[in-house]
Amino acid sequence: MSGWLKIVGLGPGSEAMVTPEVTAVLQEATDVVGYVPYVNRVAPRAGLVRHGSDNREEIRRAEQALQLALEGHRVVVVSSGDPGVFAMAAAVFEALEAGDAQWRALDIQVLPGISAMLAASASVGAPLGHDFCCINLSDNLKPWALIEKRLRLAAEADFAMAFYNPRSKARPVGFERTLEVLREACGPDRLIIFARAVSTPEESVLVTTLGEATPDMADMRTLVIVGSQQTRLIERSGSPLVYTPRSAD
Amino acid sequence: MSGWLKIVGLGPGSEAMVTPEVTAVLQEATDVVGYVPYVNRVAPRAGLVRHGSDNREEIRRAEQALQLALEGHRVVVVSSGDPGVFAMAAAVFEALEAGDAQWRALDIQVLPGISAMLAASASVGAPLGHDFCCINLSDNLKPWALIEKRLRLAAEADFAMAFYNPRSKARPVGFERTLEVLREACGPDRLIIFARAVSTPEESVLVTTLGEATPDMADMRTLVIVGSQQTRLIERSGSPLVYTPRSAD
Repeated sequence: MSGWLKIVGLGPGSEAMVTPEVTAVLQEATDVVGYVPYVNRVAPRAGLVRHGSDNREEIRRAEQALQLALEGHRVVVVSSGDPGVFAMAAAVFEALEAGDAQWRALDIQVLPGISAMLAASASVGAPLGHDFCCINLSDNLKPWALIEKRLRLAAEADFAMAFYNPRSKARPVGFERTLEVLREACGPDRLIIFARAVSTPEESVLVTTLGEATPDMADMRTLVIVGSQQTRLIERSGSPLVYTPRSAD
Repeated sequence: MSGWLKIVGLGPGSEAMVTPEVTAVLQEATDVVGYVPYVNRVAPRAGLVRHGSDNREEIRRAEQALQLALEGHRVVVVSSGDPGVFAMAAAVFEALEAGDAQWRALDIQVLPGISAMLAASASVGAPLGHDFCCINLSDNLKPWALIEKRLRLAAEADFAMAFYNPRSKARPVGFERTLEVLREACGPDRLIIFARAVSTPEESVLVTTLGEATPDMADMRTLVIVGSQQTRLIERSGSPLVYTPRSAD
């Protein structure tokens, strides 16, 4: 039997956003590997072993997946959202580069998913409708000074911005500082969107301004989007729409 | 009959990347509106009118879709990739804001799709695995000076970069200039990926360096990705893998 490894994205939560190609490889898999809550999104069945592991165990998890594939298993590594955006694909390639030379000969494929930033953007309109950047606000794997430098340059470039991992119990201070830096660079009237658990039963979306935003509006399930200078809000009877026009001066 | 408007993404080309929720609304639609090649991706059937229009007619197309929904039609506006990334969602909201006040009361929803940048990234590994930006290189709707400013600031921030609309017959010079700016800012050894028509039968993917890159490697069907300083290439017997590690100094 010839093994393979597929690194796939399950999308933000709704089964209606899982692509058919991801559903198909999950049906062919002998092993599913990932962070426990994501592995639990794959229904158990005969012939499928589900290997759930903890957060921050990405490299060990990647090594396990590569080794299973080398032994002939059909292995799917699952991430939420898209596997290539702050998720398992980079971890698998880090492990591959540093590990067993035989792993390089494996049949490996990445299957994209609906990323949290695209789902969050869609939930309010089109705030990422023009040039934008995407920053992981966790300083677990990079210095805070680099995050702050990128925030200031992104504001100077007038990008819309999507932020992953804004705030956790272990990092309560960084997002407060992020809001301070952005208020200074972009002013208090700039639009900010807190999109939590989009496409799940717990979805909640809040549109406000940097002047009104407080750190407790975000947690680890929140995708935060900050508009550019051009980003506009359309009032209507229901929830407002937010979009960034296609043109800029 | 109560009309509605859904602005959806068909993904980069493969039917296996169209989400189930998009497939479902296409089955309920009375009208599909979009650029001719994208409308042609929706199979004809009784009860469905397909309204194809030309490139650069986005606002007129958006107005048509809004008006049809107001008249009680079930309207799907289709984009390739994701509708919120340099596609029809922003155009619809521009038309909505400027147009008939009754349009604001419509039932409007954006359904995300697999964007070209996510599909391109997946095709080579995970080059967008860490902080990145996404820039439309067309200067049809913004001045070239703003594009160049964003390129320089993105290089200074050490973002990986994804570029849409790199080059067309009407704009042969901009991408040549883009490569010059990036060679100056990032050096000749920086990795660059030309991912053309990913997930279609015409797919071709080229991995090279800024020093070796030439403008004719891109056309309007090409998504270009430039790595950050951290982006790495893994050689192996087949095509190489490119990824950006999760950590940075």
